[in-house]
Amino acid sequence: MSRAVILLSGGLDSVTTLAIAQSQGYQCHALSFDYGQRHRSELDAVKRILACFVDVTHKVIHLDLDQMGGSALTDVDIAVPMQPSAGIPVTYVPARNTIFLSLALGWAEVLSADAIFIGVNAVDYSGYPDCRPEYIETFQKLANLATRQALEGKAIKLETPLIHLSKAEIIRKGIQLGIDYSMTVSCYAADAKGHACGECDSCRLRAAGFADAGVSDPTIYQ
Amino acid sequence: MSRAVILLSGGLDSVTTLAIAQSQGYQCHALSFDYGQRHRSELDAVKRILACFVDVTHKVIHLDLDQMGGSALTDVDIAVPMQPSAGIPVTYVPARNTIFLSLALGWAEVLSADAIFIGVNAVDYSGYPDCRPEYIETFQKLANLATRQALEGKAIKLETPLIHLSKAEIIRKGIQLGIDYSMTVSCYAADAKGHACGECDSCRLRAAGFADAGVSDPTIYQ
Repeated sequence: MSRAVILLSGGLDSVTTLAIAQSQGYQCHALSFDYGQRHRSELDAVKRILACFVDVTHKVIHLDLDQMGGSALTDVDIAVPMQPSAGIPVTYVPARNTIFLSLALGWAEVLSADAIFIGVNAVDYSGYPDCRPEYIETFQKLANLATRQALEGKAIKLETPLIHLSKAEIIRKGIQLGIDYSMTVSCYAADAKGHACGECDSCRLRAAGFADAGVSDPTIYQ
Repeated sequence: MSRAVILLSGGLDSVTTLAIAQSQGYQCHALSFDYGQRHRSELDAVKRILACFVDVTHKVIHLDLDQMGGSALTDVDIAVPMQPSAGIPVTYVPARNTIFLSLALGWAEVLSADAIFIGVNAVDYSGYPDCRPEYIETFQKLANLATRQALEGKAIKLETPLIHLSKAEIIRKGIQLGIDYSMTVSCYAADAKGHACGECDSCRLRAAGFADAGVSDPTIYQ
């Protein structure tokens, strides 16, 4: 059975990605990060969600990105914007996907895994540089050089099944796969219970996705 | 004044790299990792070494790579080999340089830094895949895509001043710059005082470097 590491934040995209990986027959190893994010309740959501999946192992890596700061998600002195902003919003976390993918690469090699799944999306997204196809293609080239496993002829494949889908398409796909999206937390300003603000960039993209998909929004708002 | 993040393990190569970066006029921000390494005394060496440098800020990131394992450096059940081995030795830590560089990239962006210095060497080295020039060139391509700062036209440059030097050349360079190598810890099996075993791959490469340079070996052995 092929093995895969799945980056799992507890949000709509990453949970759909996990369901897709499992539907493709992978033995799934979910990887989450306790990185000083203000919406830490997403990690409680991860636990509740994983209780609905069979045969998924899970690891949470602690990483004190809040001692670096530089983002509204890791520095409480920078507010999460509640209005759309021009350019890349302050919720961008410097090098976050590079950091998360590199740790996924390390764990994938320890597991002798075949693939890493990441739920990046370059359609209904916030313009983050490390969600774009050219970024993913270049990380793949790096992964092909970075590990012993790659040198021995078994490179780890980066899988991004959502990258070209709209949010509505992602939601329809997830519903087909049986996901209960009320359990997922996408909100950057989620409260301790994981209830969403309904106003941040992530909430707006998510709500528009449910509307476009013609599906009743199951998100629990504050 | 240009700013740089310097990956600083406390070993011979990284300390030389710090001295080179400072000699080039960079305002230096040293980054170390408490990653579950068995030779954790290298972090005490970092503190002693930094007391000899002026105007270097320092950050230590805690990262529980030992919960992943897969290397003699992060899993106490895998012994550090005391004889040369064929191929990449078991001291290889899966994706370590990718992980360290990605965190350096994040901190560099928070600092609006111009460069990241890493003391990789592809001459007198253990054959690790993530020390090779083609790996470094590809990480540079990734860094050029990964951050907001790069998109805004100020890409972060990866500097590897040691990559093509022999260990003897590195030592001569460091002595010119005033480094007291007795303070550095390269040994994979260093004891709590930072004293070296004299037998592991890292000790052998280091001792041969001092011999080739015609310099008395100042390493404190167990």
